[in-house]
Amino acid sequence: METKDQIRVSELAVEPPPPIDAGLVFIGRIHTPWVTRQQAPRQGRQDGPPCRIEVFDPWVAALEGLERYERIEVIYWLHLSRRDLVRQSPADDGTSRGTFSIRSPVRPNPLGTSVVRLIGIEGRFVLVQGLDCIDGTPLLDLKPDRGLFSPVVPA
Amino acid sequence: METKDQIRVSELAVEPPPPIDAGLVFIGRIHTPWVTRQQAPRQGRQDGPPCRIEVFDPWVAALEGLERYERIEVIYWLHLSRRDLVRQSPADDGTSRGTFSIRSPVRPNPLGTSVVRLIGIEGRFVLVQGLDCIDGTPLLDLKPDRGLFSPVVPA
Repeated sequence: METKDQIRVSELAVEPPPPIDAGLVFIGRIHTPWVTRQQAPRQGRQDGPPCRIEVFDPWVAALEGLERYERIEVIYWLHLSRRDLVRQSPADDGTSRGTFSIRSPVRPNPLGTSVVRLIGIEGRFVLVQGLDCIDGTPLLDLKPDRGLFSPVVPA
Repeated sequence: METKDQIRVSELAVEPPPPIDAGLVFIGRIHTPWVTRQQAPRQGRQDGPPCRIEVFDPWVAALEGLERYERIEVIYWLHLSRRDLVRQSPADDGTSRGTFSIRSPVRPNPLGTSVVRLIGIEGRFVLVQGLDCIDGTPLLDLKPDRGLFSPVVPA
């Protein structure tokens, strides 16, 4: 985790407006092998270790039908991230890039998205491969992969 | 827009906990040709009409470098959606499916994600093709498409 103290040379912080435009509910928790951000991979791999996504009540019933998709999209809250950097220096080499041009967890709304391989669903647990977030990351949403999903239209 | 009154046969609503676990800031606004949810396509097409994503200050500086990507991921807030359905009936035919098994805007956290074709960036405006959200949708995040992005690692 980066703390407010650890801004790097060439990075740029701003004073953002308070994040009060909409509210999120944590609908579950993601269990992964990575305890710290340093341990987590920079990008998930679909042959990576299995991870377990726990879904809280009352949303377990909303999983029905998800099992038919080989790949799913997972959206989560990068709860350890600062939110005030507009330029970042991922390589810490004196150069920086705009926050929206990288997939760093540090962003005005620290939303993480991954497309993962679905291994199976057991009750409230969704088993997947391909995540890169740390253990305990709050879950926000699950969706079928957009490439596999066909919208259902009324007759 | 579906209202609370319009729940369909076989759909299931719950009383969800209040959405106060984390707060979002609207960092921009998405301009599209579709004024109502009925007009909007069910899924965006990369040969669809150009749409204009407006980024608010102080995040315009965070766009620097995004122009190098042909495809970008857009995350937005589906501000008209109810959030309490665990089963939905997209075809309104008496059958229903779990909310996480469809890409409906109605979800506990109404987060929309699209992968779109980047046409260009002009100041605070990002021009893209491939969106399916309605005009005025609040913007939450922009990222390079995960397939095009290689994480930068410190030396």
